[in-house]
Amino acid sequence: MLSKKPYRGTRDFFPKEQRLREFIFETMHKCALKYGFEPYDGPLLEEVALYQAKSGEELINDQIYSFNDRGERFVAIRPEMTPTLARMVAQIHKEELKPIRWFSIPNLMRYEKPQRGRLREHWQFNCDIFGASGRLGELEILNLAISLFKDFGANAEHFEIRINDRAVIDSFFNYLKLSEEQVYRIYKIIDKSKKVDEAALDKMIGELKLEDSTVTSLKKYLNLTSFDELNTFFSELGLSDSISEFNLLIDKLNKDYVLYDPCIVRGLDYYTGVVFEIFDKNPENRRALCGGGAYANLLQIFNEPPLAGVGFGLGDVTLTDFLNGHNLVPERVREPAIDVLFTFQDENALEISLEMANKLRDRNLSVLSVFEKLKMQRVFKVAEKRGARFTTIIGSNELDNKKIIIKNLETKEQKEFSFDDIDSIVNFVG
Amino acid sequence: MLSKKPYRGTRDFFPKEQRLREFIFETMHKCALKYGFEPYDGPLLEEVALYQAKSGEELINDQIYSFNDRGERFVAIRPEMTPTLARMVAQIHKEELKPIRWFSIPNLMRYEKPQRGRLREHWQFNCDIFGASGRLGELEILNLAISLFKDFGANAEHFEIRINDRAVIDSFFNYLKLSEEQVYRIYKIIDKSKKVDEAALDKMIGELKLEDSTVTSLKKYLNLTSFDELNTFFSELGLSDSISEFNLLIDKLNKDYVLYDPCIVRGLDYYTGVVFEIFDKNPENRRALCGGGAYANLLQIFNEPPLAGVGFGLGDVTLTDFLNGHNLVPERVREPAIDVLFTFQDENALEISLEMANKLRDRNLSVLSVFEKLKMQRVFKVAEKRGARFTTIIGSNELDNKKIIIKNLETKEQKEFSFDDIDSIVNFVG
Repeated sequence: MLSKKPYRGTRDFFPKEQRLREFIFETMHKCALKYGFEPYDGPLLEEVALYQAKSGEELINDQIYSFNDRGERFVAIRPEMTPTLARMVAQIHKEELKPIRWFSIPNLMRYEKPQRGRLREHWQFNCDIFGASGRLGELEILNLAISLFKDFGANAEHFEIRINDRAVIDSFFNYLKLSEEQVYRIYKIIDKSKKVDEAALDKMIGELKLEDSTVTSLKKYLNLTSFDELNTFFSELGLSDSISEFNLLIDKLNKDYVLYDPCIVRGLDYYTGVVFEIFDKNPENRRALCGGGAYANLLQIFNEPPLAGVGFGLGDVTLTDFLNGHNLVPERVREPAIDVLFTFQDENALEISLEMANKLRDRNLSVLSVFEKLKMQRVFKVAEKRGARFTTIIGSNELDNKKIIIKNLETKEQKEFSFDDIDSIVNFVG
Repeated sequence: MLSKKPYRGTRDFFPKEQRLREFIFETMHKCALKYGFEPYDGPLLEEVALYQAKSGEELINDQIYSFNDRGERFVAIRPEMTPTLARMVAQIHKEELKPIRWFSIPNLMRYEKPQRGRLREHWQFNCDIFGASGRLGELEILNLAISLFKDFGANAEHFEIRINDRAVIDSFFNYLKLSEEQVYRIYKIIDKSKKVDEAALDKMIGELKLEDSTVTSLKKYLNLTSFDELNTFFSELGLSDSISEFNLLIDKLNKDYVLYDPCIVRGLDYYTGVVFEIFDKNPENRRALCGGGAYANLLQIFNEPPLAGVGFGLGDVTLTDFLNGHNLVPERVREPAIDVLFTFQDENALEISLEMANKLRDRNLSVLSVFEKLKMQRVFKVAEKRGARFTTIIGSNELDNKKIIIKNLETKEQKEFSFDDIDSIVNFVG
């Protein structure tokens, strides 16, 4: 017996869900265009070699959908967009006017254990800037992310941006005279620090066998809670210079949304500058909705000269939970909406009703034709179900007189028109 | 060395191509909404069992991208949308108000030998109606397809709809007293008939070892060129009754676009009523852009009661060739378009320029910020490249007076505004 259910970790989008998805994508699309970003997209499949060069080990070993195609090419369904983006930018960056500002909303797949906020297939809004001078690309990307949430009707009660800077952390690690191996392990520890209790954290740090003063310093860092504390801490270490650029960026950001978080490092990814995550402040859904940051060497894997970039990815699953959790989805979004429900009450009116419906469509109205005569009480039920603003009525009297009644279902106003007076009908419905 | 090229048979959509794709999808989307269709989508992966139950052998054996997932589920990247649609409709058809009118624009993959008009990844506009009475669903689907081409600016010089009817053919085969096995083989021959010369066709028919009179009749059928000839032929055979319903449908269709073609049978697919293909009339691209038809038993594989449907699928690769071949893509579609290029000529104006750009974005204008001071001659070059309608100018004088100049790049009109007079600026640019 065939299953009617979708494949594990994926979704069927019935019209109610698909209309919400379209609303979300349209809001993303409009926001990106407001910032002058240009749309792009890439293939669903890439050769696994691309991800091996660009992505983390966990992704390759446990998460990608990889297989040999019929021509024995080892390929994968895209699990993230950045490697494709790097491949595409590598083709054109020499000729393109900088900065390059691109966005995309691809579907991605990862072999995950499905749970709240995490599915195997999701869509991800990706925005990136390449070749912007100084910190201005980072500023713009952060502003774009804030704008997007505001466009969804969210405010500082709903979300916050936790921010850090890899260059700042690196200068601190440098001060601590840590080896490359130690830095690598500390990044892993920081990444996990929010998920474990203090004892476990102490144990992990203990395993590094650092000097006591280093451990004290490291723990002090991990307990920083604001930009002010970060500045005081760095000034005490004599590292004020290495934080000045980051401060310039922070100064320009809207503080309503942004806070300092020493534990945001974005794992072992390729980031080299600002790193950030956007968090849902809903106590029932405290999770990262979105992550991003700045990277210096996107094109390295193609042996191209360095091109600095900054970007973020925002998944639709967590975003939908966020919007629902804060009641930010307007009711109308999920419901159908048509201009005119075209009904008739005399079966001989079928032909004229189909003809007129097409004429109204030619005038860009959305018209739903009912194919059988419909009693009036049924008309109103169908109209409500289909989200019609107007309905037509053609009974025997109207048909004899070549007239049609059009009724505004909200105001209850109704008017009679000649069959051929399309202009007046469009005007009335318009 | 990593390849910068996309995986064979797939495409990188740089902004020029992606804007065209968005234009195409938007036109499809609007057209479907005009007919009151509702959007849906399904997962990228389905279990192969679904396609085994629903799709043709060639697809399963040679074309699908199938593999075992990490949990040993045998899955495939969707090669077509109808099986997913059937699975989804099977879940909800009992409660849904009929007819159900749904559309989707999914990305699909087939392992094809890439060639003109055929790639491994493409997007396909799918429209279907379920539970419409009589032939009215078929009529609406055909009208929707015609509307879509008209919405792209196409007319009867550009495309034609070749139409046939499986019920009509079956009544003819029934008259010829053909066995099920012979019918199966003849459908295969008809499907190939346009691709081979007469000798080859004769040979294929010869292999069926039919009676001479049957062969004569069959060849006469294959040479029909119009609805009139079809009617004469059927009337001579005494089969007029079995063509009357099809005639009723044809009567209601716009004859400018529709012609009879005895060779359109849509292979061994599940069609049971009208079948059609939309052809490009461009002599350099004479190929089917779109195929569709009516089917009686979409839900059979789920042991659900019969639900009649009719639909079509239109791929973006052939459609793009069609639009380009007839010069139907407006030039503006591929080009970037922004409202305001935000430039300054005194480097101290950076801060105010970023601030004002954000204020204009809050008013829903699309604004591209330039991050460095730009000389005037360069401003116009960048504005042209980025498709700006307006540019800003803030030199040292303007900065001193807290003024900004905004220039209409088409009319060359320019006006000066106070930094804080956002309303007037929006008005001027609006």
